[in-house]
Amino acid sequence: MLRVGIIGATAYTSLELIKILLRHPEVKITYLGVRRTDRPRISDIFPTLKNLLDLKCETIEQKEVPENIDLAFITLPPTISMQYVPLFIQKSIKVIDFSADYRFRDKSLYERWYKTQHTDSKGIETAVYGLPELFREKIKKARLVGNPGCYTTATILALAPLLMKGLVFPEDIIVDAKSGVSGRGREPKEDTHYCECNENIEAYSVGGHRHSPEIEHILSMRTNQKVSIQFVPHLIPMNRGILCTIYAKPKHGMTVGANGHSPFSDHEVHKLYKEFYGNGPFIRLKEGHETPRTKDVTYTNFCDIATKVTENRIVILSAIDNLIKGASGQAVQNMNVMCGFDEKTGLL
Amino acid sequence: MLRVGIIGATAYTSLELIKILLRHPEVKITYLGVRRTDRPRISDIFPTLKNLLDLKCETIEQKEVPENIDLAFITLPPTISMQYVPLFIQKSIKVIDFSADYRFRDKSLYERWYKTQHTDSKGIETAVYGLPELFREKIKKARLVGNPGCYTTATILALAPLLMKGLVFPEDIIVDAKSGVSGRGREPKEDTHYCECNENIEAYSVGGHRHSPEIEHILSMRTNQKVSIQFVPHLIPMNRGILCTIYAKPKHGMTVGANGHSPFSDHEVHKLYKEFYGNGPFIRLKEGHETPRTKDVTYTNFCDIATKVTENRIVILSAIDNLIKGASGQAVQNMNVMCGFDEKTGLL
Amino acid sequence: MLRVGIIGATAYTSLELIKILLRHPEVKITYLGVRRTDRPRISDIFPTLKNLLDLKCETIEQKEVPENIDLAFITLPPTISMQYVPLFIQKSIKVIDFSADYRFRDKSLYERWYKTQHTDSKGIETAVYGLPELFREKIKKARLVGNPGCYTTATILALAPLLMKGLVFPEDIIVDAKSGVSGRGREPKEDTHYCECNENIEAYSVGGHRHSPEIEHILSMRTNQKVSIQFVPHLIPMNRGILCTIYAKPKHGMTVGANGHSPFSDHEVHKLYKEFYGNGPFIRLKEGHETPRTKDVTYTNFCDIATKVTENRIVILSAIDNLIKGASGQAVQNMNVMCGFDEKTGLL
Amino acid sequence: MLRVGIIGATAYTSLELIKILLRHPEVKITYLGVRRTDRPRISDIFPTLKNLLDLKCETIEQKEVPENIDLAFITLPPTISMQYVPLFIQKSIKVIDFSADYRFRDKSLYERWYKTQHTDSKGIETAVYGLPELFREKIKKARLVGNPGCYTTATILALAPLLMKGLVFPEDIIVDAKSGVSGRGREPKEDTHYCECNENIEAYSVGGHRHSPEIEHILSMRTNQKVSIQFVPHLIPMNRGILCTIYAKPKHGMTVGANGHSPFSDHEVHKLYKEFYGNGPFIRLKEGHETPRTKDVTYTNFCDIATKVTENRIVILSAIDNLIKGASGQAVQNMNVMCGFDEKTGLL
Repeated sequence: MLRVGIIGATAYTSLELIKILLRHPEVKITYLGVRRTDRPRISDIFPTLKNLLDLKCETIEQKEVPENIDLAFITLPPTISMQYVPLFIQKSIKVIDFSADYRFRDKSLYERWYKTQHTDSKGIETAVYGLPELFREKIKKARLVGNPGCYTTATILALAPLLMKGLVFPEDIIVDAKSGVSGRGREPKEDTHYCECNENIEAYSVGGHRHSPEIEHILSMRTNQKVSIQFVPHLIPMNRGILCTIYAKPKHGMTVGANGHSPFSDHEVHKLYKEFYGNGPFIRLKEGHETPRTKDVTYTNFCDIATKVTENRIVILSAIDNLIKGASGQAVQNMNVMCGFDEKTGLL
Repeated sequence: MLRVGIIGATAYTSLELIKILLRHPEVKITYLGVRRTDRPRISDIFPTLKNLLDLKCETIEQKEVPENIDLAFITLPPTISMQYVPLFIQKSIKVIDFSADYRFRDKSLYERWYKTQHTDSKGIETAVYGLPELFREKIKKARLVGNPGCYTTATILALAPLLMKGLVFPEDIIVDAKSGVSGRGREPKEDTHYCECNENIEAYSVGGHRHSPEIEHILSMRTNQKVSIQFVPHLIPMNRGILCTIYAKPKHGMTVGANGHSPFSDHEVHKLYKEFYGNGPFIRLKEGHETPRTKDVTYTNFCDIATKVTENRIVILSAIDNLIKGASGQAVQNMNVMCGFDEKTGLL
Repeated sequence: MLRVGIIGATAYTSLELIKILLRHPEVKITYLGVRRTDRPRISDIFPTLKNLLDLKCETIEQKEVPENIDLAFITLPPTISMQYVPLFIQKSIKVIDFSADYRFRDKSLYERWYKTQHTDSKGIETAVYGLPELFREKIKKARLVGNPGCYTTATILALAPLLMKGLVFPEDIIVDAKSGVSGRGREPKEDTHYCECNENIEAYSVGGHRHSPEIEHILSMRTNQKVSIQFVPHLIPMNRGILCTIYAKPKHGMTVGANGHSPFSDHEVHKLYKEFYGNGPFIRLKEGHETPRTKDVTYTNFCDIATKVTENRIVILSAIDNLIKGASGQAVQNMNVMCGFDEKTGLL
Repeated sequence: MLRVGIIGATAYTSLELIKILLRHPEVKITYLGVRRTDRPRISDIFPTLKNLLDLKCETIEQKEVPENIDLAFITLPPTISMQYVPLFIQKSIKVIDFSADYRFRDKSLYERWYKTQHTDSKGIETAVYGLPELFREKIKKARLVGNPGCYTTATILALAPLLMKGLVFPEDIIVDAKSGVSGRGREPKEDTHYCECNENIEAYSVGGHRHSPEIEHILSMRTNQKVSIQFVPHLIPMNRGILCTIYAKPKHGMTVGANGHSPFSDHEVHKLYKEFYGNGPFIRLKEGHETPRTKDVTYTNFCDIATKVTENRIVILSAIDNLIKGASGQAVQNMNVMCGFDEKTGLL
């Protein structure tokens, strides 16, 4: 049995992680760490876990590394994570970090957006970006994985095939993203008050959102071109789910419903995605006129994708559960790859 | 033009008050007071008011009474209100207070439930309970009105006819109440976080809610019997609206669908309510099998009521908008009565 | 492997059933039957199942019994079920029926409420009521189980301990029930239109709801007294979840917070429930001031219960997921008991 | 008093129309027409109107034109409207039509998208597009107004200033639109079932939505260039509200936060919009980092707009209430202009 710990156990993502791990036949949750000193039971923080997991949470304030774990999921906020991760790595504990602290290969990019000096250069160099559909081989050998952001997961999965194949321009890509409120985190703030979110939709961070540079960085690295996106996120009155509507410009003249040889027909593009994602167990491609609905992916680790070639642009729609494929499900998927389990274990 | 001020202008009830008053042909909002020192525009706090009311809010920290108002709506929390109300009364400004501070005629009852000594005995003696359907004549002559609680308005209006007529036992009355989240107020707290309220329903204050003694107190006073209720409120995933489902025990053997002479037929009970509320412009009685829906009363000052005689109990259903008939609409209705305007002005 | 079939595969409860069964290590779904002739894939009807179950649905119009199943879950509407169930019983296939057709032991009671003559008297006599917490031993030996209604499950589980122990009067029990909209079924109707349900709450079937006689019938039978309840259901703007708030009258003078020997203290009542439900894996009792929240039970087979002794009544709160413990989870729990599996299999 | 009638009185837009007109001091609702023969009271169809308007609805099946109206609001579906409108025009009754039947100046464009031959060529030639901010002078003299679509209103208002000034390319404009469910209409269908819409977001009509040609047609006409947009609408889990996020490409090199002379700074663009919309009473421009929230415009006739100049594109955000500024409020605004009332009457 792999012994796992969750450091930052009171986050919404941690609740989802626990629910998945409780079903995982190869792992046992042996440690829960929180930035509190009162040792609450996890089932007092999340009553839904009562009789499922009644473990007590230990304090991490002293920065002591638990002895009884083989792998740590770290769900602390960005700039905090990097204070803890090296301690675990030094004890030969594998780490999957949920924050942005290990997603960038370029330290300066991180520092510009998170306005903090990165304290773990070594970690940032060795960490692997935890998107198995694109980096599976690297994750297999990794000891430290930077789990991707939620919006970034949906966007990168949607764009990778077209960019890898060089079918669309890498710049002037429009990403209009929509997310449920759990993406905002658990802390009570004015903008997560029920009456501020309910019966309302609004855009935010229009000037620049932290996921923008992450998306551009990873896609540029992986597809060898300078990717530049326009990213506008919106808050939707629902608990969970992300839908990204992406508009990319085809490199050659487009044809709508053309013969089987033009790369810019719905048929050909669909085929491209099918081949690119092969047997990747968590990518589902919609057929015909169907578009992805977040309700079909919530509570699952699936990413549903649809593509539509129109007169001017290729529209790609991509739906995930921000807490699962956008965080905890993906983390378990990474763990499965790192530890040699079937990639679907605990997730289907 | 009657000049009105709102003291506590950042509350949800204040926003509703402003929207109603802007439509009222006889009044002008000349003063907004807040417990802040930064003099924000009200339309910065409530962007929906931009171009409708851009007045700046004045600080009330110094407890100075504005000179330019004839009537004050005070929307401060309980125990705070009573520090301000006497100052206004002394300046001959009429006051409608939204808190519980002036709802009780019995000081000790207030002190037991709000755990604070009441500092304005004189006010508590002279104040009138602001439920026009029951206390219209007193309100006409009042200088100080204690605006009722939201749950209490719905419950008292539902029960008054049956209790006045002595048709039901005044004890063992069950009141199962349901309210939208705006009833919780504007301050961000764990239990008003969108993800805690959405897709969820729960009861609270099961042991005793502050509206319980208020309901019993007012109904006992008005109907000359010792009224005792069992009151359990629930939080519903919607912005606004209250539905109370009330179960009262008929005093004599009941008859379901009987002849026209038994007082306990749907027909007779309906007639009783019709006569009791006469031309009260804001009570609407449902007919036949229709039950009140909160969506039919939200954004209005109506209270929709239905009664159903069953084998064992009389069931009364009562729906209001907690922010309007449960607070701000009722306050304007009280103002209309106090100032000699048609009771419906600004409200229909 | 136990081979199971679902007859009526397009219902919301069928989707939940499939999701649970896909995780059940002892069963395999080998047959899906629908009242259609076009043989759709189940993943076309429920896109969330794509890549999880792509089985085609067979028509049941001809009333042919499939050869490849050992146990059938029948999710057809009441009065339709009883046309199919006997066909399966005759072929020695175990049946768990979701409708009301096999819940009553008294045929006339069924016929009065469902206004249809029951065509399977033998079935009605031999069927067992599928509430394991109360009827586990009978279910073990049953070949035909009538799966309880959703409201009835929540209500019976809440009241059984107090009634069995004779601590409350069996009449004048008030049951105020609240349910999410999935309880209304999948068919588009005016009253399930998003805009009619959202931001609204209303009571319905105030005069009498079909679950009323079912609750009274089962509780009367099981506790040997004539139980009579006042049941009023309400529609809540959420997908799923049921909360019942129940008010029962204690048989002796009540005491609030009394010594440890009075049966009517919170402590003693809590103890009674703990003993009554013993190791029943799906009943969770709330402690202290906590009340059940539907969000803690949705997507689980748990029933969370809290009890509160007040001056006048004992208030019992009971929360379940109407689709899981109120239908499909309970059905799998029954299957586990009937087939000798651990009762929790597939459900935790 | 202007006597008005509503033909198609059971639509959601008709309910909103009635609520606005009941507050309008210059008009009286004298006629309600429906495609039914049972003469229901409007307050039976919309219980919220009880005691506000209890008028009976007359049948329009015989196509008789009522004698007692001066102006007709026609809220019938497209292709049906055009069967009725000429009858009213012939009787010198002014008409404001809510459908698409009179929005296009090009008959062939209408016929291509609505797949029906237009039967009222004369009407289509003389009708005026009912967007006062752009066509006020024409509306003043109009006898027949085609009330714009909801998405089109939000989009055209957002883009007009930039296109009129020639600051952005008229092609490759991306319009990502989001709407509440009332935009789908009142009829119960699978895709408006509460459980299908709640906790979900999805795109639809990705290949082409009927509002696309309308937007291009009107903007092309008004700004004298061939405007081509990519339009993707999405269904949002809320009752009402539309947010459009629009991405337009600036014609010259862009500068972020430049000096006051470049036309492509936030400051200059904001100034452009301010000048363009002048004293138009219903356009509100957001300042600084604020973005439009649909909750600030619902239940009002306002359109809130924000513009943001980014590295690559100009992002314009536009929020309206689909039922008010997107339909009924705009219709009353048009009526005010047509009949010489202050444009804000009944709307503020």
